[in-house]
Amino acid sequence: MPGAFTVAIQELQELLGERLETSSSVRQHHAHDESFHLPASPEAVAFPKSTSEVSEIARICMRHHMPMLPFGTGTAMEGGVNASHGGLSIDMSLMNNILSVTSEDMDCTVQAGVTRKQLNEHLRDQGMFFPIDPGADASVGGMAATRASGTNAVRYGTMRDAVLALTVVMADGKIVKTSSRARKSAAGYDLTRLFIGSEGTLGIICEISLRLHAIPEAISAAVCAFGSVEGAINTVIETIQMGVPIARIELLDAAAINAVNQYSGTDYPFLPHLFLEFHGTQAWVAEQASIVKELAVENQGSEFQWASNTEDRTALWQARHDFAYAARATRPNARIFSTDVCVPISQLAQCILETITDIKSMPMSMPIVGHVGDGNFHVVPAVDPENEAEMLLIDSFHTRLIHRALSAGGTCTGEHGIGQGKKAFLAEELPAGVDIMKTIKHALDPDNLMNPGKVVDIN
Amino acid sequence: MPGAFTVAIQELQELLGERLETSSSVRQHHAHDESFHLPASPEAVAFPKSTSEVSEIARICMRHHMPMLPFGTGTAMEGGVNASHGGLSIDMSLMNNILSVTSEDMDCTVQAGVTRKQLNEHLRDQGMFFPIDPGADASVGGMAATRASGTNAVRYGTMRDAVLALTVVMADGKIVKTSSRARKSAAGYDLTRLFIGSEGTLGIICEISLRLHAIPEAISAAVCAFGSVEGAINTVIETIQMGVPIARIELLDAAAINAVNQYSGTDYPFLPHLFLEFHGTQAWVAEQASIVKELAVENQGSEFQWASNTEDRTALWQARHDFAYAARATRPNARIFSTDVCVPISQLAQCILETITDIKSMPMSMPIVGHVGDGNFHVVPAVDPENEAEMLLIDSFHTRLIHRALSAGGTCTGEHGIGQGKKAFLAEELPAGVDIMKTIKHALDPDNLMNPGKVVDIN
Repeated sequence: MPGAFTVAIQELQELLGERLETSSSVRQHHAHDESFHLPASPEAVAFPKSTSEVSEIARICMRHHMPMLPFGTGTAMEGGVNASHGGLSIDMSLMNNILSVTSEDMDCTVQAGVTRKQLNEHLRDQGMFFPIDPGADASVGGMAATRASGTNAVRYGTMRDAVLALTVVMADGKIVKTSSRARKSAAGYDLTRLFIGSEGTLGIICEISLRLHAIPEAISAAVCAFGSVEGAINTVIETIQMGVPIARIELLDAAAINAVNQYSGTDYPFLPHLFLEFHGTQAWVAEQASIVKELAVENQGSEFQWASNTEDRTALWQARHDFAYAARATRPNARIFSTDVCVPISQLAQCILETITDIKSMPMSMPIVGHVGDGNFHVVPAVDPENEAEMLLIDSFHTRLIHRALSAGGTCTGEHGIGQGKKAFLAEELPAGVDIMKTIKHALDPDNLMNPGKVVDIN
Repeated sequence: MPGAFTVAIQELQELLGERLETSSSVRQHHAHDESFHLPASPEAVAFPKSTSEVSEIARICMRHHMPMLPFGTGTAMEGGVNASHGGLSIDMSLMNNILSVTSEDMDCTVQAGVTRKQLNEHLRDQGMFFPIDPGADASVGGMAATRASGTNAVRYGTMRDAVLALTVVMADGKIVKTSSRARKSAAGYDLTRLFIGSEGTLGIICEISLRLHAIPEAISAAVCAFGSVEGAINTVIETIQMGVPIARIELLDAAAINAVNQYSGTDYPFLPHLFLEFHGTQAWVAEQASIVKELAVENQGSEFQWASNTEDRTALWQARHDFAYAARATRPNARIFSTDVCVPISQLAQCILETITDIKSMPMSMPIVGHVGDGNFHVVPAVDPENEAEMLLIDSFHTRLIHRALSAGGTCTGEHGIGQGKKAFLAEELPAGVDIMKTIKHALDPDNLMNPGKVVDIN
């Protein structure tokens, strides 16, 4: 409905002045994330500076029935920011203040637009870090909204664990604080966790209090090649079952290594690899590493190639983090289609091996990377979203993969969220649960104005 | 309304036969928990054996507008099981089957009536344990419903972290599975966490999938006396800030030690103490202990008194766990009134010291114990609930304590929940949040049949 929100846009302009953008370039920039999902431009983009401004914006939008779409850095994977139902994109990038850091409590409170790298830069001198690491330099608000995790989750948990409290603006503009800063609480329903992972469909996350961690005395990273994917996965499973508190344990199959070598100029052998990291005191890191080395040897792994100084470690993890771009670069003008299943670790080997067999039937390269310590892995083909035949093939591969994961007791999404693309799978995974989700969505956002068309459909 | 539920009770009797009890002794047993809250008997007590029976019970109750009150072991602290609005107590003790244990995934699925000791007994041979430890041998369902934690939470988290998935019966009898068994998931709203801590007011938790942990290679416990409470607390704060993954770090002040010595026959010096436990490999436990010993020495702590063999450790923690009974035994025919504030750890010393000053103005003994690694502590006087003057004094002490905690950025309840006693404090702590909680309660239980009068009031 172009033009339908003329009055709303005028009111928003009065509120925000030049921080309400309607130019087509800005709208197009806010029409998509990093995924293959078809872009859809919002009618306008707001750049609020404070929670109270977000509240004012919500009041205007509610009055005019204008959908509200929170936007972080646009680095998500499920089309969650795309304005599939039109409306106002609310870009949080100017809300990038670190409001407080309490080193005695090892926590901090930030505005939603603060990015994880900005935060870690700020924290470094105080000997603390924020561990959640989805690869991209995402905003903390976006990470909370999608319940992000990434490479460190096996040790430090996901955004579910990292967040102490939120300040959220509801559809009607009401400002809600979800919790105190206490480390634990039994004070009523867990509103914090309700908003984490709600993908902007229940409210707009404006401020976040986060648990931080002490930068470990020692950090060592290593790379280990395996003759087979089974060998790598079995090493992971045994490491987890031994209770080794490994900080990172990432699988890259041979196709993924190939993409990384080409994009990042590395020269890893064309074999499945584990990328590992150990955190602790010097002695404890050495002990953890020796346990895992032994497990790797038993599973025909290579010698560990160590990266103990900061520079080498940064290069190693940069290569891992650039994998999404590396995958995309394997084909000109491609978008990436990232699957995201997560299964109980006992099912991981079989699920990945069956998936590899399935990949052999596909006409394109489909590299696999995985946060395998959590049972989470991504198959990441580079696709042309406008090639219908190809998208049909990929869709049907994706459906088979998700059904494989669901029948193994897993989930259709370990960390990317439902967005627009996985609503049908969510209903398969949690059929009765989806009804409860819809009831909650309807109760908290009766006009379906908060990021409509994502996660669940109501009305 | 005695007699109001005659038809409902007849239908329940048809469904359950002898597993529907209306005798006054059984009803009275289900009228209260371990707290001072006034008992209130239900009209009847159901003993279901399966989730589908619970579902049938809910359908009957909903048809007749009969309140439903889930009952675990009756060991809670906020009167959450008391039938303050009448209705049917649903005793889960016959639902005590361990449905599955998957050692490769280090998880299990149990019925709600399984107790934590029963579960740990079952798991021991498989080298795993379930760490959440509220002291009492509570049921896993009750622990999930109250978001329980206890002595191990500083290392292993609370029920929020321990639960992978729930099966819940809603007010209308619908059976809802909240999640898969995957270690992490971004599949829609976090229904699991919504029910954890909802105290039976949103649904009846019937089955629980739990994360388990490997029994550590080495476990060492120690006791350390301090000349002052400050010295003990500062040792705790520094331990946490150093990032030492201590498994337990419990404060008992001199009054608490006195009660323990009398009840358990121990002979600890009449001084504040820390009870500590370290988990890990032999080398890692030794390293952790040496770090904490050094911190204790700097804070004028005594030599560590070690308990490394299982028998000594069990005795040590039994004495700690029996503290609630020890506190009650300080006075004939008393009930205990347990406060439960939790504050950011930077505020802990001041909050406890101000509370100690406040205690000096009180006419009764008020021992303090605390899960101080989390910032959570309990002041636990033995009271006579029928002595109005005394209860007024205690209430006003409690109000001062909670206001102290709230102004320190803390919460009125770290682990006991809201129940009937803390609804007003919840509204002070999270004024806008309570409105959201009421909206959710109203949406999921429109007739207010699920444990009415607890956590939030609607209608």
